[in-house]
Amino acid sequence: MNILYDERVDGALPRVDKAALLAELRERLPGLDILHREEDLKPYECDGLSAYRTMPMLVVLPERIEQVEALLRLCHRRRVPVVARGAGTGLSGGALPLEQGILLVMARFDKILEVNPEGRFARVQPGVRNLAISQAAAPFGLYYAPDPSSQIACSIGGNVAENAGGVHCLKYGLTVHNLLKVEILSVEGERLTLGSDALDSPGFDLLALFSGSEGMLGIVTEVTVKLLPRPQMAKVLLASFDSVEKAGRAVGEIIAAGVIPGGLEMMDNLAIRAAEDFIHAGYPVEAEAILLCELDGVEADVHDDCERVRRVLEQAGATEVRQARDEAERAKFWAGRKNAFPAVGRLSPDYYCMDGTIPRRELPGVLRGIAELSAEYGLRVANVFHAGDGNMHPLILFDANRPGELERAEALGGKILELCVAVGGSITGEHGVGREKINQMCAQFNADELTLFHAVKAAFDPGRLLNPGKNIPTLHRCAEFGAMHVHHGRLPFPELERF
Amino acid sequence: MNILYDERVDGALPRVDKAALLAELRERLPGLDILHREEDLKPYECDGLSAYRTMPMLVVLPERIEQVEALLRLCHRRRVPVVARGAGTGLSGGALPLEQGILLVMARFDKILEVNPEGRFARVQPGVRNLAISQAAAPFGLYYAPDPSSQIACSIGGNVAENAGGVHCLKYGLTVHNLLKVEILSVEGERLTLGSDALDSPGFDLLALFSGSEGMLGIVTEVTVKLLPRPQMAKVLLASFDSVEKAGRAVGEIIAAGVIPGGLEMMDNLAIRAAEDFIHAGYPVEAEAILLCELDGVEADVHDDCERVRRVLEQAGATEVRQARDEAERAKFWAGRKNAFPAVGRLSPDYYCMDGTIPRRELPGVLRGIAELSAEYGLRVANVFHAGDGNMHPLILFDANRPGELERAEALGGKILELCVAVGGSITGEHGVGREKINQMCAQFNADELTLFHAVKAAFDPGRLLNPGKNIPTLHRCAEFGAMHVHHGRLPFPELERF
Repeated sequence: MNILYDERVDGALPRVDKAALLAELRERLPGLDILHREEDLKPYECDGLSAYRTMPMLVVLPERIEQVEALLRLCHRRRVPVVARGAGTGLSGGALPLEQGILLVMARFDKILEVNPEGRFARVQPGVRNLAISQAAAPFGLYYAPDPSSQIACSIGGNVAENAGGVHCLKYGLTVHNLLKVEILSVEGERLTLGSDALDSPGFDLLALFSGSEGMLGIVTEVTVKLLPRPQMAKVLLASFDSVEKAGRAVGEIIAAGVIPGGLEMMDNLAIRAAEDFIHAGYPVEAEAILLCELDGVEADVHDDCERVRRVLEQAGATEVRQARDEAERAKFWAGRKNAFPAVGRLSPDYYCMDGTIPRRELPGVLRGIAELSAEYGLRVANVFHAGDGNMHPLILFDANRPGELERAEALGGKILELCVAVGGSITGEHGVGREKINQMCAQFNADELTLFHAVKAAFDPGRLLNPGKNIPTLHRCAEFGAMHVHHGRLPFPELERF
Repeated sequence: MNILYDERVDGALPRVDKAALLAELRERLPGLDILHREEDLKPYECDGLSAYRTMPMLVVLPERIEQVEALLRLCHRRRVPVVARGAGTGLSGGALPLEQGILLVMARFDKILEVNPEGRFARVQPGVRNLAISQAAAPFGLYYAPDPSSQIACSIGGNVAENAGGVHCLKYGLTVHNLLKVEILSVEGERLTLGSDALDSPGFDLLALFSGSEGMLGIVTEVTVKLLPRPQMAKVLLASFDSVEKAGRAVGEIIAAGVIPGGLEMMDNLAIRAAEDFIHAGYPVEAEAILLCELDGVEADVHDDCERVRRVLEQAGATEVRQARDEAERAKFWAGRKNAFPAVGRLSPDYYCMDGTIPRRELPGVLRGIAELSAEYGLRVANVFHAGDGNMHPLILFDANRPGELERAEALGGKILELCVAVGGSITGEHGVGREKINQMCAQFNADELTLFHAVKAAFDPGRLLNPGKNIPTLHRCAEFGAMHVHHGRLPFPELERF
């Protein structure tokens, strides 16, 4: 599928003469690998969200920080936009290139610089894969906690840019909670350090601000992450329910019982059947919903927690609660969950993966709301998600070849996100805003709040050269989208011209 | 003691006519309590850092958010600086008033609006005391984790402004890690929401940016904090050492052994003797250093951890390891630690409490460095601190009545903080920068980084009306202080005039 987007924001920049830019880059940065022919550029036209495609003007693949510095200085002087890209696994089009800009691929910065067990940190280059950090830390009994499903491939620089999450975020936090320090290059090529090796850093918390800023505030050149001790053991419970609402309520009750599971995932019947057909995980295909609840820690603790969670699940109306008998069965239970997206993908020519977050207590109502919207739009929706932290991933099934289905799928997705916002939630949990959800940002924030975002952006990048057109919509775009909040009865229009 | 500071930054604003301002406030905000007579203003001339004193021009004590809104709009129009204050317990002069500004006291906003056990959060007004949140959550088996020593008195709004810490931050994080959402008023009196009730909020992470921003970005009007389940039990170990370096090394080894204690505190001989004289906690007065290590969680877990930590302590050379026999002894062990500051205060007419943070592995070296500096400056230093997270609180003992001692104490304090920065640490752990450590910020950050801080400040408050002269030094000040970083061989002077 192919969703067009508004290029106007980029249009504010002068047109770039590709041949002249290429010539200048070659002259000033003789060692730098540059791709410029259509067949070489093609692999970079999208990230993990393949719905959005744009051919980049040029792709550069630096190997030394000095090259990135020089490139940024040159682009700043010539007012050429720069989009940074890690492994390109992002799901919101955050690394989508620009026709009039340079795609800066950071994948070759793939060195682990230090693993320090006493300080419990690892210092790595931005192109290091998420899983490679845990592998390097394993000999010390340590690991890096945030684990997006793409962790085999995705890079830590991209994780920082999108504030990536994963199955274990409920207990161990998002990327932002597991960072100590990042080294960045500003849009002008200045080296800046955000955060410190110590507990806290004075002044404003620019490290947290930077995390999840989607390449709009600077380019990550080095990341220092916290490492955690590997839990002694982990057990997983599989609970079946005869209604999704009951399963949704059980999630809140587990947390209210004082347990913080290592992972707490939910799948509905459509997802269960798809996963079971694909993986043969041993899931109960008659259940309307299942919960997978992993308890990790020291042995006695895990044992106590398992008993406590089992009682809560039974009281919440679970029709069956099974504990994985051994590591092999535990691995199978998780394999079903981790392959649920491709499994659902087999049910339908196309699917659209949403990412919204809601307060846990709203789960039963929002699940009901999604079912009603699904019926209204005549499209099936499978639910597979991080229930414990309220991070929903409804998968909308459709066939792009049937006239009107793509538009219906998009409209349904938008409605689901608005439902999330309406109950006090947010339009993203871990995939970011990128290009995909920029319109929904207009529903999430009012004009004053968006104005503040633009002002913060301007503090780092007044010329708006870094990843323009992502993450933060212009007020103009919001006015056209028609979802602009009107705040305190004041109309936002006087400010329209400002950004 | 009385330390003068540079008022120049405030001088950039027009002089305020006190009588005219008072008349206008009375006319436009008839119900607002305003203090203007010297005897009424006197109690507000300093916060918990009594070294710095300035008489505010006016003190206002609003009771409704609408009053704060109207006040901010009026001050914005007239370009009158506003300093917000909670309970006034801050230790870095962050709430120090201005002679040419309004002190906005938020103490009357003291309502707990909601305690939600299922969502595990509490929604409170900014003047609510830290401990009152845990008391309100106690019936549900929950509590609010960050626990500064002033928790009986300090307010949550002030905790947000200073990103307050406490004994339990090693395991449970600083204020920023325990926030879901804040409602703020901008300098123009606009209502803004930072964060959300859900796991994550899209766009830039302004909630984290705001936490610790010391009243420079906006005024907190409502705070939603996370609540945690109370640990089932807690045990405390007291280990004695014949050298501070050995104790410092043991700290790193406990963490490297895979244990995260609920609290891990260190005291040196001077502090031990002072506390024992004052509290009779049962401390070993011959020891050169003690560690207090609290393990909390479920029973079996705590038992295992105690055994593991005991072995680590013994291998690290502890001369004795005692476990508190019962709750009474545990309370006594902690009473000694919690009263260590006033206990040390009895040893000397004056003391100066520092707050620096270093990477844990640097503890032995920095403790040795402090001892050398103490000898060099001829002033005794007692060390009482959050060892587990590397947050040091050296207490410099001096007598302000002896000529030159105050200056020597200040100089020694500055040296200690520079030592912290030199080993990769920071000039504050939990007390903030405020007025006190503004010069050390010049050592911590380079000109590009400080310029970025000012640009971020300008995004929120371009007229610099909110708490001017705190937290972020002007480049001019840094140049005069002589500690300016020279970055990449470029001199910062061309930028001097910008801020």
